[in-house]
Amino acid sequence: MAKNARQVTVRTETTEQGDIRLRCGSFPTSVVVGRGLLPRLDSLTGRKESPFIVADDITGPLFGDYPGKRKGMHLLPRGEKGKSLSSIGGIYTSLAGCGMERTDTILALGGGVTGDAAGFAAATWMRGIRLIQCPTTLLAQADSAIGGKTGANLSEGKNLVGAFHPAEWVLSDVECLRSQKEEDFRQGLAEAVKYGAGEDWNFLSWLEENAGPILRRDCGVLLRLVSDCSRMKLAVVSEDEREQSGARARLNLGHTIGHALEAASGYKRWKHGDAVAAGIMVAARLAGRLGELGEEECRRIGRILSRFSLPTGPDRPWEDILLFLARDKKFTGGVPSLVIPRKDAPCTLRSDIPLPLLREAYEKSL
Amino acid sequence: MAKNARQVTVRTETTEQGDIRLRCGSFPTSVVVGRGLLPRLDSLTGRKESPFIVADDITGPLFGDYPGKRKGMHLLPRGEKGKSLSSIGGIYTSLAGCGMERTDTILALGGGVTGDAAGFAAATWMRGIRLIQCPTTLLAQADSAIGGKTGANLSEGKNLVGAFHPAEWVLSDVECLRSQKEEDFRQGLAEAVKYGAGEDWNFLSWLEENAGPILRRDCGVLLRLVSDCSRMKLAVVSEDEREQSGARARLNLGHTIGHALEAASGYKRWKHGDAVAAGIMVAARLAGRLGELGEEECRRIGRILSRFSLPTGPDRPWEDILLFLARDKKFTGGVPSLVIPRKDAPCTLRSDIPLPLLREAYEKSL
Repeated sequence: MAKNARQVTVRTETTEQGDIRLRCGSFPTSVVVGRGLLPRLDSLTGRKESPFIVADDITGPLFGDYPGKRKGMHLLPRGEKGKSLSSIGGIYTSLAGCGMERTDTILALGGGVTGDAAGFAAATWMRGIRLIQCPTTLLAQADSAIGGKTGANLSEGKNLVGAFHPAEWVLSDVECLRSQKEEDFRQGLAEAVKYGAGEDWNFLSWLEENAGPILRRDCGVLLRLVSDCSRMKLAVVSEDEREQSGARARLNLGHTIGHALEAASGYKRWKHGDAVAAGIMVAARLAGRLGELGEEECRRIGRILSRFSLPTGPDRPWEDILLFLARDKKFTGGVPSLVIPRKDAPCTLRSDIPLPLLREAYEKSL
Repeated sequence: MAKNARQVTVRTETTEQGDIRLRCGSFPTSVVVGRGLLPRLDSLTGRKESPFIVADDITGPLFGDYPGKRKGMHLLPRGEKGKSLSSIGGIYTSLAGCGMERTDTILALGGGVTGDAAGFAAATWMRGIRLIQCPTTLLAQADSAIGGKTGANLSEGKNLVGAFHPAEWVLSDVECLRSQKEEDFRQGLAEAVKYGAGEDWNFLSWLEENAGPILRRDCGVLLRLVSDCSRMKLAVVSEDEREQSGARARLNLGHTIGHALEAASGYKRWKHGDAVAAGIMVAARLAGRLGELGEEECRRIGRILSRFSLPTGPDRPWEDILLFLARDKKFTGGVPSLVIPRKDAPCTLRSDIPLPLLREAYEKSL
């Protein structure tokens, strides 16, 4: 299947140590994907100052072997409560306790929640200090650590508060992924399928051909998986640094339905990647109905989701999620905007989708 | 006395309504100084959407005559506690309650604390929404509302948390100043003297010649006072949007000693403008000692401060404030950096000042 040529070029380089380094245009983040990156932090970033570590009780000890190499450490509670406002207030207190100054650096060591919370603290400490992201989950490495989005949750909703604050470095050590729980690893695979169906069908083919080694977490294959996703993410966010040009909307493939499913379940039954997987399937069925995707592509998407033990559809009646869909920022005047995968091109945001057609695609996926 | 020609040009225009409009280069803020601006909000900004108002119990009612012209309102507690983290959390709760979206606008109506807190909320709500500043005090109109600095206090220190988020509009209605308490009005006059001694000696002459009408708060004179200070502030911040090139350092004339005095008094005895006035006097004496300023300029600075009932020196022994000076970010290796006024040029940051010389200037001002 034809690959659509991106306008943006991501410079990719493999170093002597076997790391893959990525940079794109003027976007301020350098991504390094490799093995055993933490012990090489200083030489990788070329900096001598010790960072302040924000981690959780599982990732914190990963830094434990390097005493003296930190200015201080703050451990977040695990899960979404790690990015509540009061949790962020706790980071601030620790930063003040260490006398953190404008020239200091925060290093986020953990999954998406840690990256979001530590990133928001870095964005706002003394009006913004340097940030290094060391994502330790597949979801964070393949997706959330790159692009500069940071955020905090309120009791009224997720990510209502936040800032754009791209990390200077995103250091993705794929060895961290080998010990990830299967259920959590799977959440990241959903984003990988999103890049395949949404950005580059050649990458989807690669996922299909390498599903076995991916699920076995072969280090070489993980390197390729994370660096390819990072490359695609970097290309999209460089095109649209602050979510203004519309390019970033493509990253929402599967997310509109996915967010509604998560919200409808009270963020309990559905994990983010699982919900996105179901959303991708609905979007693919809709694309089929709109003539943007053939039967075979739809089936391929379903097959690779199943291979990764991801859901291939929602579990709630249409009426249940309609209410949450209507709250979506992209749902205006009773007509939803949805990102649709296409056969020979990157996915695209469509604002002309008749609601009955979406309902049909949704109910076919149930 | 020669006026130093600025590199940056501030476009200044007087409208049919008698408003003075200012813009500078690519800096994203339009400043309007005038009378009766609030009722003309829509026509001034050319926007139809109602803003969300952040105010306090005194300024809130100023907006009361325009029902329907607001999306919602949040009243802050008065004083520095209005910009605590929990106070900002309160703003977020109100924003969520009103369903504030990315395309909405926050309008800050009040003094420096209100502007800082509302500005920080605007900087971080959904990763940044539009901001209109309607400063109601001389300090905020002449200085703090322009430049994009927003912030929150922690119990560990003031403004430790914050963001750069320039307002789209700064609407300074000088009629608000007529009812300001004398003590509060004086705080703003200290910043005006800072612009005179630091940026433009012609402006200092104008202050000297118009001290009477300024103190009587003649509206025409207030228009000139606020618009001239706004012009100088806009020129400096446009030169150095994010405090990186060093130009903004000039705005700290009087502030290094001032902050130390405020802190040494536990932020009780000394108000900000009073402390800055004392700091300007110390800096002027030091400049005299360094040959940058003549006897007569020093005396002129002292005379205009006195005319405005501002202090002309500190009240604590040198030993008391040394500890707080040493905590200043600009105090490195036992040598302070201080902004020094100069006879024929804008003030400048000097990092080569022997501590005994600073002590001498300080003690002479006691």
